[in-house]
Amino acid sequence: MSSVLYHFAFDPGSRAARLALGEAKVAFEETPVRPWEDSCPIAGLNPSGMPPVLQVTETGRTLTLCEPAAILGWLEDRSAAPFLLPADAAERAETRRLVTWFDRRFTDEVDAVLLHERMEKPLLRLGPPEARALRAGREALRAHLSQFESLVAERDWLSGRRLSQADLVAAAHLSILDYFGEVAWANWPALKTWYMKLKSRPCFRPLLADRFPGVPASGQYADLDF
Amino acid sequence: MSSVLYHFAFDPGSRAARLALGEAKVAFEETPVRPWEDSCPIAGLNPSGMPPVLQVTETGRTLTLCEPAAILGWLEDRSAAPFLLPADAAERAETRRLVTWFDRRFTDEVDAVLLHERMEKPLLRLGPPEARALRAGREALRAHLSQFESLVAERDWLSGRRLSQADLVAAAHLSILDYFGEVAWANWPALKTWYMKLKSRPCFRPLLADRFPGVPASGQYADLDF
Repeated sequence: MSSVLYHFAFDPGSRAARLALGEAKVAFEETPVRPWEDSCPIAGLNPSGMPPVLQVTETGRTLTLCEPAAILGWLEDRSAAPFLLPADAAERAETRRLVTWFDRRFTDEVDAVLLHERMEKPLLRLGPPEARALRAGREALRAHLSQFESLVAERDWLSGRRLSQADLVAAAHLSILDYFGEVAWANWPALKTWYMKLKSRPCFRPLLADRFPGVPASGQYADLDF
Repeated sequence: MSSVLYHFAFDPGSRAARLALGEAKVAFEETPVRPWEDSCPIAGLNPSGMPPVLQVTETGRTLTLCEPAAILGWLEDRSAAPFLLPADAAERAETRRLVTWFDRRFTDEVDAVLLHERMEKPLLRLGPPEARALRAGREALRAHLSQFESLVAERDWLSGRRLSQADLVAAAHLSILDYFGEVAWANWPALKTWYMKLKSRPCFRPLLADRFPGVPASGQYADLDF
């Protein structure tokens, strides 16, 4: 079996795919893409034009997996035992609720504001960040972090007793915000412990080496004992 | 086993849940909710405050399934054979890609414009629809319908040879737009045939009886031979 992942290092869905492939110990070649460029090879693979896309070739057949749901779903399907969807029905439901939460609420209320100001604007040369937007995005982020803090304060992992898709998806989003120094970990002690546990896993190591052009990583980004 | 579905009849996710429960022949009580009201019972069940939520009580244990992903996922998990996720790996990937497409692209580009103008504005007394927004939403809808037309022109169902989650999620969104007369079916012959097949299924019947306060259904909405 050979696999190629088309991804953008600062796209939350791409990071979730890399983390899940790492947890599954599926080796893959990386093709970094810049989805906003006309020549991006993803345009011919995924109708949405967005990473991640995983192409898996096995016994002469190529499977094209577009979007994180298809990649995470495929990893679950090929695993003999429950993998990143816990066996317990309530924890499975909670995992799926949280993945939806990140796909919709967190993306719309936090990423679309803070990552737009800090990341898309310099990439697409849209001018400097706006103070008002940054304040609104940071306030929204605090409200989300406060909810996650309550969850991990009473659970081992975000959706229950087992590492799940919810943890990887959450870490994918938060790690990008952390690169830009947007997560005040000291205010969220349980969440910080949860993130330290995740960050120490081998699947996380490649992400900690990512660098954004022109913006150095925040001090604690690659530090396992932050 | 007893089940209660908290849903709003003109919410696409709620409709997808009703269609999937109908296909699975899972009997459920209905609790219609108005998620924008302070007293909405969903506030205490789903942190996002949004329908659908399915509560299933079985052998003394109550399972709370929040968001369509948890409900559709649970139906898949409890089925002995592949149900609304096809057995074939490529069709499973295509199903998951299309569900993501509706959750993000269709919701952001079409629903957030057209359903806002036609549905949310009268519900929340936000004033009359704006002609410019309606034109933009209708243009976006045409671009999406044109893509779906190409897919169903060469396939039996939206993601391949089997009815899947993608068909039910697509029909959930399109049926609401059809209620408001926004889908020019005559322009999309393959899609019209696909929709007629879906509309004739028993799971669809309850949706065709839904009525929006103050807006009569479009002429073809409940007509199986439109």
